[in-house]
Amino acid sequence: MLGHLDGATRLCLILGDPIAQVKSPAGLTRRMAARGHNGVVVPGHVAAGDFDAFVAAAKRLRNLDGIVVTVPHKFAAARHCDRLSGRARLLGAVNVLRREADGRWAGEMLDGAGFVAALRQAGGEPAGRRALLVGAGGAGSAIGAELLASGVAALAVHDADPARRDALIARLRAAWPDVPVSAGGDDPAGFTLLANATPLGMRAADPPPLRLDRIGPDAAVGDVVTAPEATPLIAAARARGCPAATGVAMFEAQAALLTDYLIGAARL
Amino acid sequence: MLGHLDGATRLCLILGDPIAQVKSPAGLTRRMAARGHNGVVVPGHVAAGDFDAFVAAAKRLRNLDGIVVTVPHKFAAARHCDRLSGRARLLGAVNVLRREADGRWAGEMLDGAGFVAALRQAGGEPAGRRALLVGAGGAGSAIGAELLASGVAALAVHDADPARRDALIARLRAAWPDVPVSAGGDDPAGFTLLANATPLGMRAADPPPLRLDRIGPDAAVGDVVTAPEATPLIAAARARGCPAATGVAMFEAQAALLTDYLIGAARL
Repeated sequence: MLGHLDGATRLCLILGDPIAQVKSPAGLTRRMAARGHNGVVVPGHVAAGDFDAFVAAAKRLRNLDGIVVTVPHKFAAARHCDRLSGRARLLGAVNVLRREADGRWAGEMLDGAGFVAALRQAGGEPAGRRALLVGAGGAGSAIGAELLASGVAALAVHDADPARRDALIARLRAAWPDVPVSAGGDDPAGFTLLANATPLGMRAADPPPLRLDRIGPDAAVGDVVTAPEATPLIAAARARGCPAATGVAMFEAQAALLTDYLIGAARL
Repeated sequence: MLGHLDGATRLCLILGDPIAQVKSPAGLTRRMAARGHNGVVVPGHVAAGDFDAFVAAAKRLRNLDGIVVTVPHKFAAARHCDRLSGRARLLGAVNVLRREADGRWAGEMLDGAGFVAALRQAGGEPAGRRALLVGAGGAGSAIGAELLASGVAALAVHDADPARRDALIARLRAAWPDVPVSAGGDDPAGFTLLANATPLGMRAADPPPLRLDRIGPDAAVGDVVTAPEATPLIAAARARGCPAATGVAMFEAQAALLTDYLIGAARL
């Protein structure tokens, strides 16, 4: 299933705590092999208190091309980059680092880009849409920034924690002063792009992240929840004939972007 | 080809400089999979000057079960072990480390054990034989110790460098004071076990490590050279009907021992 492995195999790590639930090592490795790249992505279980020392030493591995980062290390990882992309700098977080041709480490945040790519694949081009984002945590922050970078006409943010919501709004307004960014609620009426960046929908007993009966027929809908693949939000969008991007589609779109980024590093 | 890879996959590293020539990652990983172990062995390119800092940090990886060590790190690696096996202590070197149940790191040297296992598989049980070892470097030292531990009746050591030869003889005599250990030459007459631990035989122009015309019919022969698989020494042994263990057979026998050792760690 995984192709090649030998002394010349290039390495990438995916670091998290916990790590056992992570599903991407096989998919990323398979994508690399499909592109003719002799590389492997392996999981690394690193506790928060060990992260800085481990990453500093891992950079000494000469066949290490990149590090994918997951919870809880996305903010700490940004400190280990010599260069940050615009989105990574705005969010203060990265989900991938790679070694560049000059030996320095660059950091990127692709959590929002996977969402937007999946939305586009579903037929929901975000440019010009009026977007409602539910959830202002790590995933929501990345998605909000990516929606603005992709040209939404306006963005409303809804979160159960008003302080967290307002902090994200302030950060996004500072970066995109010409686009209206406001506090929203759970009513999707009038919005043409709906993004769920909360875990709501994972459990059958969860309330929906927004009022499903108020979804307009012209809304494009995306959901970060991967299991179940068709959440009640996704099902409601499909029932109305709306473009709908599942969490699984996001995950796959992000895997493609991560592979591009990591292989780019190896081939520089 | 390589079976499973996910977030729960246990890791082992094989560290060397250079590392690209190493062939064992796939074989070790396949052997683990064949035993139902979800593990992967990946190459790590670490320079000598980075070794100590890297290993200290790698131990923070909670899903790292072991480290296989190759040139030039076998001596440095011994310093990173909380416990050494008897052979590792004698040689001051290890080729594998594993994390034990109590979290401490144990070190073992299996370079000689692979040679003896392959010799036994070829029908050349070493116990009671009079052995001639050619080569007193790292591989020769490990093989000499393993031959004594396996009960040879006597051991002669031949090396182009007399100081290196005498240093090994002194160390082996101290550990096995009851077995005759002496300086030998390139004449195998009278010996019933012949071990080549030099690179001689890799190139067609190489002189043989010992006088092939003087090999007795009752000698068991082993060679560390893996390419060509049938060196002139191996060919001469086979022509006489002697038990003959190739470098490839040693490599395979050692891979089985390494897998035992590493999986033992993971299952403790």
